[in-house]
Amino acid sequence: MTPERYATIKRVLDQRQPDLTVITDEVHKGRNLSAIMRNCDAVGIDCMHCVVPQRGFRNFRGTDLGTHKWVDAEVYDSIDQPIDKLQKQGFQVVAAHLSDDAVDYREVDYTKPTALLMGTEKEGVSSEALAAADTHVTIPMVGMVESFNVSVACAIILVEAQRQRQLAGLYNTSRMDPDRYRTRLFRWCQP
Amino acid sequence: MTPERYATIKRVLDQRQPDLTVITDEVHKGRNLSAIMRNCDAVGIDCMHCVVPQRGFRNFRGTDLGTHKWVDAEVYDSIDQPIDKLQKQGFQVVAAHLSDDAVDYREVDYTKPTALLMGTEKEGVSSEALAAADTHVTIPMVGMVESFNVSVACAIILVEAQRQRQLAGLYNTSRMDPDRYRTRLFRWCQP
Ligand SMILES: C[S@@+](CC[C@H](N)C(=O)[O-])C[C@H]1O[C@@H](n2cnc3c(N)ncnc32)[C@H](O)[C@@H]1O
Ligand SMILES: C[S@@+](CC[C@H](N)C(=O)[O-])C[C@H]1O[C@@H](n2cnc3c(N)ncnc32)[C@H](O)[C@@H]1O
Repeated sequence: MTPERYATIKRVLDQRQPDLTVITDEVHKGRNLSAIMRNCDAVGIDCMHCVVPQRGFRNFRGTDLGTHKWVDAEVYDSIDQPIDKLQKQGFQVVAAHLSDDAVDYREVDYTKPTALLMGTEKEGVSSEALAAADTHVTIPMVGMVESFNVSVACAIILVEAQRQRQLAGLYNTSRMDPDRYRTRLFRWCQP
Repeated sequence: MTPERYATIKRVLDQRQPDLTVITDEVHKGRNLSAIMRNCDAVGIDCMHCVVPQRGFRNFRGTDLGTHKWVDAEVYDSIDQPIDKLQKQGFQVVAAHLSDDAVDYREVDYTKPTALLMGTEKEGVSSEALAAADTHVTIPMVGMVESFNVSVACAIILVEAQRQRQLAGLYNTSRMDPDRYRTRLFRWCQP
């Protein structure tokens, strides 16, 4: 490992945001999950939370989630589990959802501990998850197609969260739990 | 056709932005081109400009570009053609590119006539296109992976353009050429 690579790894770990995450509610296409992970990495998310449809479970673990090196994925089989767990840890759950009573996604304060909840490709966020979420946000659209691709919508909202957090100085000091930091550092330095 | 559907079509056409477009520089994966089109539709782009790699040409016309109903695609075989054409029409060409001398994508004024140039999946924007572009913009990232998926990056920048144009009132009056408007209206009303 070159000193430059080591410095990059440390710089990235120093900017990880332990209080920002994504929950996917039965997003099932491997390429969408992979793209969402890539978005998570880009804004400093260390771990995402995926509710995986029963049938797809085995498939995902290996190919898309388990093998990804930079972002961890915790897998659940029902949506109440990650919502409940994160809310108990003080996270607000923000559901990305296309409805008239959702607010513009730029109106939310993402400097608070936040879990962004994304819905499945066809049906969107389940009614159970909508009821449990703290806020519903929407990205305004002016076209004929009614929604963005789920990984695209996820990125648009995460980049706004990143912008707010950058302004608030949340990327300026290392905020990850020291044990977790050391574990990641060790794993990422493996070839 | 229901009166509601007709009203939706007219509302969408009334918000189309004749002076906003996307150029793709050999983006070749069908699903990326489709996702980029979906982004274009969402922010009111009527027509995009695609440089298609020689070999892929026949493939795209049918499956991804030609059949899309809401956004037109003009196809070229070299990048200087759409850049030259659009610059002569008064468009600024803004290349999305990961480099140190690129500016933050939020610093550009997208209320001017703008063509957003996206690079190919592996190599990014060609050096020829970078030289011809008026500005290079970048979306800041803090992770290990060095880039976003191309359709994701495209959406992030287009949504910023949309935000600026909404503030400037550019969605408030119909701005499309009347002949083109009538042609679209007729086509979109076909079952
Ligand atoms: C392809 S969309 C699902 C569309 C589904 N027909 C619906 O009405 O919810 C998949 C997910 O992407 C997110 N999404 C897509 N476009 C969005 C938008 N404009 N605003 C907020 N979230 C969006 C939502 O989380 C949604 O559940
Ligand atoms: C997958 S990237 C290509 C990466 C390529 N290795 C490079 O260095 O350009 C495909 C295209 O997405 C756009 N893109 C991806 N991430 C971006 C970012 N953070 N800022 C600006 N454009 C980006 C650019 O247009 C790029 O050419």
